[in-house]
Amino acid sequence: MTQTRRWYFVNRPKHQIEPDTLELRTETLPELAEGELLLRTLYLSLDATLRLWLSEWDLYIDPVKLGDPMKGFVVAEVVQSRNPAFPVGSLAAGLGLWSEYIVTDGSGYSPMPRLPGLPIGDAFGTLAIAGPTAYVGLHEIGRIKPGDTVLVTAAAGAVGVITGQLAKIHDCRVIGVAGGADKCRWLKEEVGYDEVIDYKRGNLVEQIQAVAPDGIDVLFENVGGEILDAGLTCMKNFGTVVICGLISSYNDGAERTPGPYMFRNVIMRRLRIEGFVILDYVDRYPEYQQKLAGWMLEGKLKSRLHIVDGLENAQEALKLLYTSGNTGKLMVRVGSEH
Amino acid sequence: MTQTRRWYFVNRPKHQIEPDTLELRTETLPELAEGELLLRTLYLSLDATLRLWLSEWDLYIDPVKLGDPMKGFVVAEVVQSRNPAFPVGSLAAGLGLWSEYIVTDGSGYSPMPRLPGLPIGDAFGTLAIAGPTAYVGLHEIGRIKPGDTVLVTAAAGAVGVITGQLAKIHDCRVIGVAGGADKCRWLKEEVGYDEVIDYKRGNLVEQIQAVAPDGIDVLFENVGGEILDAGLTCMKNFGTVVICGLISSYNDGAERTPGPYMFRNVIMRRLRIEGFVILDYVDRYPEYQQKLAGWMLEGKLKSRLHIVDGLENAQEALKLLYTSGNTGKLMVRVGSEH
Repeated sequence: MTQTRRWYFVNRPKHQIEPDTLELRTETLPELAEGELLLRTLYLSLDATLRLWLSEWDLYIDPVKLGDPMKGFVVAEVVQSRNPAFPVGSLAAGLGLWSEYIVTDGSGYSPMPRLPGLPIGDAFGTLAIAGPTAYVGLHEIGRIKPGDTVLVTAAAGAVGVITGQLAKIHDCRVIGVAGGADKCRWLKEEVGYDEVIDYKRGNLVEQIQAVAPDGIDVLFENVGGEILDAGLTCMKNFGTVVICGLISSYNDGAERTPGPYMFRNVIMRRLRIEGFVILDYVDRYPEYQQKLAGWMLEGKLKSRLHIVDGLENAQEALKLLYTSGNTGKLMVRVGSEH
Repeated sequence: MTQTRRWYFVNRPKHQIEPDTLELRTETLPELAEGELLLRTLYLSLDATLRLWLSEWDLYIDPVKLGDPMKGFVVAEVVQSRNPAFPVGSLAAGLGLWSEYIVTDGSGYSPMPRLPGLPIGDAFGTLAIAGPTAYVGLHEIGRIKPGDTVLVTAAAGAVGVITGQLAKIHDCRVIGVAGGADKCRWLKEEVGYDEVIDYKRGNLVEQIQAVAPDGIDVLFENVGGEILDAGLTCMKNFGTVVICGLISSYNDGAERTPGPYMFRNVIMRRLRIEGFVILDYVDRYPEYQQKLAGWMLEGKLKSRLHIVDGLENAQEALKLLYTSGNTGKLMVRVGSEH
């Protein structure tokens, strides 16, 4: 009989996640039935969209029901198995639970290969969500071309750090927007952005215009609100706005959030604004992951992780996403990789 | 020496067009130089975008400068010519002036054929702007397919009446949004919309959901504001929002206008929102006009005109566009067709 700690969704937050939004409980898991497996969670991915799963918005996915275990993307080791697709000792990644151990029939999980030279945390942090998201946003939605000027907001976020590197690999000029001098310096010197703008330093439109006087070809938007407005103001005619995230509004709850004030530029600049959800592209994951892993092994694409230790810290860590508190991909280390 | 009455832009309106925004003057035109022609204006097209040309917004076109003659699309008869491309007696259509007579070198004008069976007003009203706009919006931007559910806002406007008919010709199910019972009845019984919703009759989202329970494939947006919000709320996953006009905000002047509150649906429903300006498509006008004229001559596409007589009434007539005061294509008859 396996005991596990597991987070439950017990109080719907009105705005920010509160200390009593989720509750950590200890429970005993059942024995495996035929076809089931027991997973030991190694890493829990903390993604901006998780706040939405706790809301009453009409979403792209079923939300977490009040009273249910909290959901999230995990990578885990198979420690018992009555399912030949997931042998003991192998890795599985997928939409799981905020839990040390999980019993599942494998639905929603895929086997994850161990790649020589690539630690599990790096592989999961970059290949599971952030990497495919950046790839789809830049290529399938943004249709970037060499020489394009690409503006990436939340450039220091999980998706932003990958997007900047991928845009460089594809010979674009890439400008990041982030908050704070340290992050901006890190993005330029370490991550490889051509230019980085600190939105806390004053007029964002003027700062963008200073480094991109001819305007933006592709805006890769992760934030929304005033930052999206500044981007829309600086678009070239016939530019593309990829809406990957609108994190600035995810704590708004039942309040009505105004859309971008410069929405009229969709006509004035003849823009295409297109949103996407990475879950729609799982069929093409092998193709994306092969490319991304190749660039990682060549040293062209670096994993940038922000790791918080201990499942018990997951709720508090999640709040970092909504306060610009993370630098790179935010994950909780739930169990050791040994 | 030809005398003409001509409107000038003399006071920039803060919001609505005021009685002193434009001023009607009488002036004497110069003799023709080599290459020039003298046009006698037959019809002046009143288009929603004209209000923007009087604003200080950053536009897709040069605005009308304060003090300059007012611009607009016209069809005119060539009454004198020193330009072989425009023989006396022929018709010319293009971006002209709010003026009974115009001297020009022909730049910005195209010869317009006289089509047997098609009065000049019908041909100009449908083929010059509204028809190509509806065609480009539905096909190039909206990429409609047979069986699509298409929602058209400002359905009784110049573009809306054509859009509804073209969507039917292409085997779509077409739902219009308009204001007032008479207009709605006319759109359904005369123009051929499958369903028409009166936005003045209460909750717009519920009304759309009642006639399109599975949602909207293509939203052809002419209005913006609350009407766009209702449309965004009712989109199918992977739907398309064609932004042709945002007339509800065109009188906002220097005020900041919030974008659509349901903007988040660009992600939740994975939408493509794309704007366009018909002036970008002039090279393809012959193709569009041939198709449109063909449908007109077959009786499948009917011209729907709202004609106001007399150049002196043009300023007052223009205001009808922003108060839902027109039904069909609004034009001023400046000179007789004889």
